[in-house]
Amino acid sequence: MANLLENSFCVVIHGGSFVYLVGQERVTLLEESLTRIIRSIHQYVTSNLSNPEFSSVDVVEYAVKLLEDDPLYNAGKGSVFTSEQTHVLEASIMDGSNLQIGAVSQLEHYKNPISVARVILEQSHHNYLVGKYAENFVENFMEKYHLEQVENNYFSTERRLEQLNVQREEQIIANLEALEGMKKGTVGCVVMLRGQVAAGTSTGGMTGKNPGRIGDSPIIGAGTYANNQTAALSLTGTGEEIMRYLGSGDIISRMKYGQQTLTQAVEGLLFTTMPPDTAGVIGVTIQGDYTMRYNSKGMLRAMCSSKDMNHAIIGIYEEEQPVSLV
Amino acid sequence: MANLLENSFCVVIHGGSFVYLVGQERVTLLEESLTRIIRSIHQYVTSNLSNPEFSSVDVVEYAVKLLEDDPLYNAGKGSVFTSEQTHVLEASIMDGSNLQIGAVSQLEHYKNPISVARVILEQSHHNYLVGKYAENFVENFMEKYHLEQVENNYFSTERRLEQLNVQREEQIIANLEALEGMKKGTVGCVVMLRGQVAAGTSTGGMTGKNPGRIGDSPIIGAGTYANNQTAALSLTGTGEEIMRYLGSGDIISRMKYGQQTLTQAVEGLLFTTMPPDTAGVIGVTIQGDYTMRYNSKGMLRAMCSSKDMNHAIIGIYEEEQPVSLV
Repeated sequence: MANLLENSFCVVIHGGSFVYLVGQERVTLLEESLTRIIRSIHQYVTSNLSNPEFSSVDVVEYAVKLLEDDPLYNAGKGSVFTSEQTHVLEASIMDGSNLQIGAVSQLEHYKNPISVARVILEQSHHNYLVGKYAENFVENFMEKYHLEQVENNYFSTERRLEQLNVQREEQIIANLEALEGMKKGTVGCVVMLRGQVAAGTSTGGMTGKNPGRIGDSPIIGAGTYANNQTAALSLTGTGEEIMRYLGSGDIISRMKYGQQTLTQAVEGLLFTTMPPDTAGVIGVTIQGDYTMRYNSKGMLRAMCSSKDMNHAIIGIYEEEQPVSLV
Repeated sequence: MANLLENSFCVVIHGGSFVYLVGQERVTLLEESLTRIIRSIHQYVTSNLSNPEFSSVDVVEYAVKLLEDDPLYNAGKGSVFTSEQTHVLEASIMDGSNLQIGAVSQLEHYKNPISVARVILEQSHHNYLVGKYAENFVENFMEKYHLEQVENNYFSTERRLEQLNVQREEQIIANLEALEGMKKGTVGCVVMLRGQVAAGTSTGGMTGKNPGRIGDSPIIGAGTYANNQTAALSLTGTGEEIMRYLGSGDIISRMKYGQQTLTQAVEGLLFTTMPPDTAGVIGVTIQGDYTMRYNSKGMLRAMCSSKDMNHAIIGIYEEEQPVSLV
């Protein structure tokens, strides 16, 4: 029993919230992807539990890399196009056990932004680096962190190009909004492992964004935060709104100063502070209490934990469904 | 009386906190500068009170520009050098009446970063732009906002070059720490005008920083925040620590969820949450309650208000001293 507790874990991932309905064909693809990814994560965690140095940050990086590598999500491969038809990526990661931070923006040539953020967390005395300076800095750690450089067009997919072209051709708000359904596919992961929490978020941003735009994903206290005293959090949605309302920082503070539970705090931010259709949140505490909530039409999400070793859950719209892990 | 209340104001500025003692010659220079600047601000505010469109954001921009233009402070002219002997500036501004945000990083060619941040606040649907993209975006608004482009070496001063050289030659922690005394000269301003608050922060960063480093100054919820419901805040200090502890966001939350006063909230962050020698804060509420606190050796600061039309105060170490405005 002691050993079970010591090896307790809970992993929650999201693949973005969305404000318009997703077609059935795409729902099937997303369900398959979420199932495959949460199974991989579960397998990864359980097979590493015997390693005492295995950490919640390891799990965040592993999970976010899987999401980045899947072209269905707006992070890494499959990221949206900027107004200049390029890809400019950003990410952040935070270790709740020591409040160490790694954040990066304006990345163009690294396959996995979350791994670049991790290098900054572990190797830089700065928290947050951008652009070519970030890329040059992490170049010293390619092997140690298994980093992979790519051409910028590695991130391109046909579907994202279509989204950019629709936006360019039809410069009316209605169409921009219609596109939003799939353009907020930021990914994230929160982990509790043996009573330590960590969080990470990664994104390609918004379709047609100014390439110099920074959103909430790399901002500690907006898109990402982790503290063993409260919770680990990753947000998705309209970055500008999440920054304005302090996102993850507001949730942490509701818990710390307002004595709210994780779920109360997340619901408070989503349903009383923020406007509708602006955000989704995943969170986990050191006790393994987790939440996956959104004030939009849906949020791609999944969870597995040591409490139920045979079942995980995945969700797109309101109801989550169980997924067998065996 | 009604008119007096309608025209109430309180302006607080800082020119950075510091952890080592400043020599007497320099103290005199700084006192003269703070006196001159707070007098200019008072004159500017009182002469514009008859204009109904005159706003707290106007005052923040005006005050921070004065600080940026003075080479004594680490913002605008007089900014520290990066490790590549360049200047890379960042700033943010927030309007507490509508939560609109403008933030910018990686600026190299605009004389007043705070004005660039204001253009982003008022003209961009993004909150936060960086580098050449920010510079290109605001180029469309040069005349309307009286923007001025400069060569990067406009920001250089002999004193900052000496600081870089000392740091380069003596690569030991002791010397880095000795330098810290004057390298954290971030500037900021918080304003209450007719019951509306706004805040702004501007910086050259840290001496010898990686040119791609982002600190707390441009981060909403770290170096800057403003909300009429709580307060307007600007922070200075070690950016990495301020980001880790959520800086302005933590203060806002202590007020909102912990029912703390502005001063209690600021003291809670500085003296119970953050390590010593890491930060200074200025803040003001819509009632005109203000605070200027720090957990370091001192903080360059000044305040003027409609409550005492003849006197302002300036401070460097613990005691503030009155300054006549007439």
